[in-house]
Amino acid sequence: SVFEGFSCANWIWKVWEFCKEDSKRLTFSFKVGLAVLLVSLLILLRAPYETFGTNIIWSILTVAIMFEYTVGATFNRGFNRALGSLLAGILAIAVGQLALHAGRVAEPFIIGISIFLIGALTSFMKLWPSFVPYEYGFRVILFTFCLIIVSGYRMGNPVKTAMDRLYSIAIGGFVAVFVNVLVFPIWAGEQLHRELVNNFNSVADTLEECVKKYLEDEGLDHPEFSKTVMDEFQDEPAYRKCRATLNSSAKLENLANSAKWEPPHGRFRHFFYPWSEYVKVGAVLRYCAYEVMALHGVLHSEIQAPYNLRIAFQTEILDATSQAAELVRRLGKDISNMKRSVTTSLLKRVHSSIVRLQRAIDMHSNLLTSYSEPLDNSSNPVKLSETPSTKLNDIADFDSNSLEKNLSMQTGDLSRTQGESSHEMMRKQSRRMHSWPSREVDAFEDEGGIGAAFLPMRTLETTAALSLATFTSLLIEFVARLDHLVDAVNDLSMMAKFKDEGL
Amino acid sequence: SVFEGFSCANWIWKVWEFCKEDSKRLTFSFKVGLAVLLVSLLILLRAPYETFGTNIIWSILTVAIMFEYTVGATFNRGFNRALGSLLAGILAIAVGQLALHAGRVAEPFIIGISIFLIGALTSFMKLWPSFVPYEYGFRVILFTFCLIIVSGYRMGNPVKTAMDRLYSIAIGGFVAVFVNVLVFPIWAGEQLHRELVNNFNSVADTLEECVKKYLEDEGLDHPEFSKTVMDEFQDEPAYRKCRATLNSSAKLENLANSAKWEPPHGRFRHFFYPWSEYVKVGAVLRYCAYEVMALHGVLHSEIQAPYNLRIAFQTEILDATSQAAELVRRLGKDISNMKRSVTTSLLKRVHSSIVRLQRAIDMHSNLLTSYSEPLDNSSNPVKLSETPSTKLNDIADFDSNSLEKNLSMQTGDLSRTQGESSHEMMRKQSRRMHSWPSREVDAFEDEGGIGAAFLPMRTLETTAALSLATFTSLLIEFVARLDHLVDAVNDLSMMAKFKDEGL
Repeated sequence: SVFEGFSCANWIWKVWEFCKEDSKRLTFSFKVGLAVLLVSLLILLRAPYETFGTNIIWSILTVAIMFEYTVGATFNRGFNRALGSLLAGILAIAVGQLALHAGRVAEPFIIGISIFLIGALTSFMKLWPSFVPYEYGFRVILFTFCLIIVSGYRMGNPVKTAMDRLYSIAIGGFVAVFVNVLVFPIWAGEQLHRELVNNFNSVADTLEECVKKYLEDEGLDHPEFSKTVMDEFQDEPAYRKCRATLNSSAKLENLANSAKWEPPHGRFRHFFYPWSEYVKVGAVLRYCAYEVMALHGVLHSEIQAPYNLRIAFQTEILDATSQAAELVRRLGKDISNMKRSVTTSLLKRVHSSIVRLQRAIDMHSNLLTSYSEPLDNSSNPVKLSETPSTKLNDIADFDSNSLEKNLSMQTGDLSRTQGESSHEMMRKQSRRMHSWPSREVDAFEDEGGIGAAFLPMRTLETTAALSLATFTSLLIEFVARLDHLVDAVNDLSMMAKFKDEGL
Repeated sequence: SVFEGFSCANWIWKVWEFCKEDSKRLTFSFKVGLAVLLVSLLILLRAPYETFGTNIIWSILTVAIMFEYTVGATFNRGFNRALGSLLAGILAIAVGQLALHAGRVAEPFIIGISIFLIGALTSFMKLWPSFVPYEYGFRVILFTFCLIIVSGYRMGNPVKTAMDRLYSIAIGGFVAVFVNVLVFPIWAGEQLHRELVNNFNSVADTLEECVKKYLEDEGLDHPEFSKTVMDEFQDEPAYRKCRATLNSSAKLENLANSAKWEPPHGRFRHFFYPWSEYVKVGAVLRYCAYEVMALHGVLHSEIQAPYNLRIAFQTEILDATSQAAELVRRLGKDISNMKRSVTTSLLKRVHSSIVRLQRAIDMHSNLLTSYSEPLDNSSNPVKLSETPSTKLNDIADFDSNSLEKNLSMQTGDLSRTQGESSHEMMRKQSRRMHSWPSREVDAFEDEGGIGAAFLPMRTLETTAALSLATFTSLLIEFVARLDHLVDAVNDLSMMAKFKDEGL
């Protein structure tokens, strides 16, 4: 029972955390309770019950089905239900009258055929791609039509049935909208606004986290595969948020669709507020986030550059990263505060830090492709001096050394290794590569002789070193895409009439 | 009217195409029609109507709401509705009895409070992440509870109301399941199976399309930005399919969830068929597809390697690509035919083609970083000779040339360019880069003098050349991930007991 008490407390704690995370959840729950209570009063109290009769039960159903989390979604669903019921009502009355005039024998046949046709037609239409969002509306048409025409047949007077049903639905809809809008309204627009700002922050966080991890001392172990595929990176909280950003496209679109149904409110005071612009900015941001995901892919890829090579451009990479992250955060903050500020200077700084990175790579580019471990085998990082003129001679020497090595090895050994099974070779290489520091030992263990083992390993060393090139060029591409992000945010701030500040 | 006739014909043509694309859509529509017709007969015919009474109307509602596209989804939704109704019925009867015994005055208060509590509680629970899939069930609980308790209050005897409602729901559910399973059933398992096979093919197609485009003669123009962001690549049909693959995670999971509800059927004859394995294979495949997306990102990135450099490793890249695509297609075909075949030889071939690519890059790696356009300025591709020993000397010369150039330029000019606005520089560079062949002209147009303009351009030339390195290393990483894909497919074929063929 101690354990039970503990797990119960644990459970309460979880629920508490869940509420604290977003108190709107509690608000929403109470609002639903309030709405169904209000509509039930119409039956529980004597006066309205005597006015409306038992048909008022449909109001309860309407409230329970129509009440959505945000104001916009409720309006949207209400529209679906209202239009669906109206269309179904008109159809049912028309068919019902037709059936009545056809006589006692033909009536059930006409009704049966019409039910079959409406069932088939609405089901077919809701599969049509552009009608998919109105799926609920088609369901409403189907069952409202059936209900009205069938009860009309048995209880007579389909017009009265249709009208009763329509006005009880109208009452339910009115109560749902009334409670949803007037009692602590949860606006889809507000949610959309926050969601977009959060996306900006999570992209910036992930970028920094990813680069930091890439340059960390501990070295990248061969990632556990299942972890990589199942996308559980417990130690990378920002990454998980960024994945949510990548999948946020549907969420943003839904919110924007709902927000369009909402009247001006809160901070969003003018009519025709450009909600669809939010979706566009989100798309451009996602386009940047794809590069961050690619960086993350390199971070956890099977083929890795050795640590001392990875940190060769540490200063430049870190500088460019933090500048870029700052710019992204600033854009997010500007949207959050609904103001326009000058980001040109920030953008300039990002660009110049990227130019410095490119220059560093350009000067020491041979490192990326002809890298081989220093002969003393100490794991000192490849240090880049501040004055390139003096260092460049070393690099040139370094390069010619490795070129000579290349020459002597490759000319002789190429044909010899062709015999070995490539698959086997590849396996051995990758094992070796993942235990990078001890690879010399492995090489000598190989039965194929030193020469045979050495060539493929060299080959993969280059490939491994190229992974650093990949990492940096993805970073550069990320920054190149930031231009478009700045433009998109600018468009949004113009169309949404954000406050000019310091312009 | 000619135009109208034309647009109408056009519209009919579209509908016809839509049906032909997947004839199951028509089947589904007719099945819904049939189901609602059958359940309506219970009211239209005299005998059942006299037995069941008007409550049978709930059956129609149940059919309209429960009837889903696949058998599994219908079972799942039926389960939600049945369990929800049952729970709500028990709750309502309990509360109703309590209210009855509390006396005439307290009764409406108890009922009102219980309605409020149930409304709040179900709304709160359906927000809880692990309950989100049962959202519909909570809605059912809410409105069923309200309907039973309210009509029990007004019409007396909540037990009878509850029982009537439960059996009419049961009848509706039975009709929906009966029609869905016995009349041309659409199995979620079959859909899942096909979807996964399609995903394999679309990944292979996209890989080939992407690489082919990268190596195409016409050269990559600066992509229209809006096109890139809005993800409309009209000329790349396979890419659009692959994007669907990336977003297929939810679809596969939904289908697998539905498939678990289905009895053994068709080709899937044994119980506890491993549907969740399909989701896992899908995840590994997506993990490979991320690399293809990254390749596509390089193809459409802002920074591009010049054409004659891109095709330097043409043979090796094309070879590796076609081998990899063949392997992926073979795996898809094996799943499609539900058989196990030996893919080791294919995997070996992919590996050896990738080793050849790596070797080629290793030997000519300096091309990737120190590339500068040939002096004669003809756009001949950088040809790699078949015998590396003779060619390597050229490359060594080539490299030392460019190193000298590097030295002479960078030592002097670095400090001079620092003054220029980096932002401005960046802009000019990217303009120049995108009109690659004519960049010499641009360079002289620059007011900053030849030296100042030349250094940043050199820098970006390296970066541009590195984009080829990025492309190839992403391709290599893709192949590295194929190992896991082969393993995952193997696991699936073991667990699903696929036929051994040629083992």
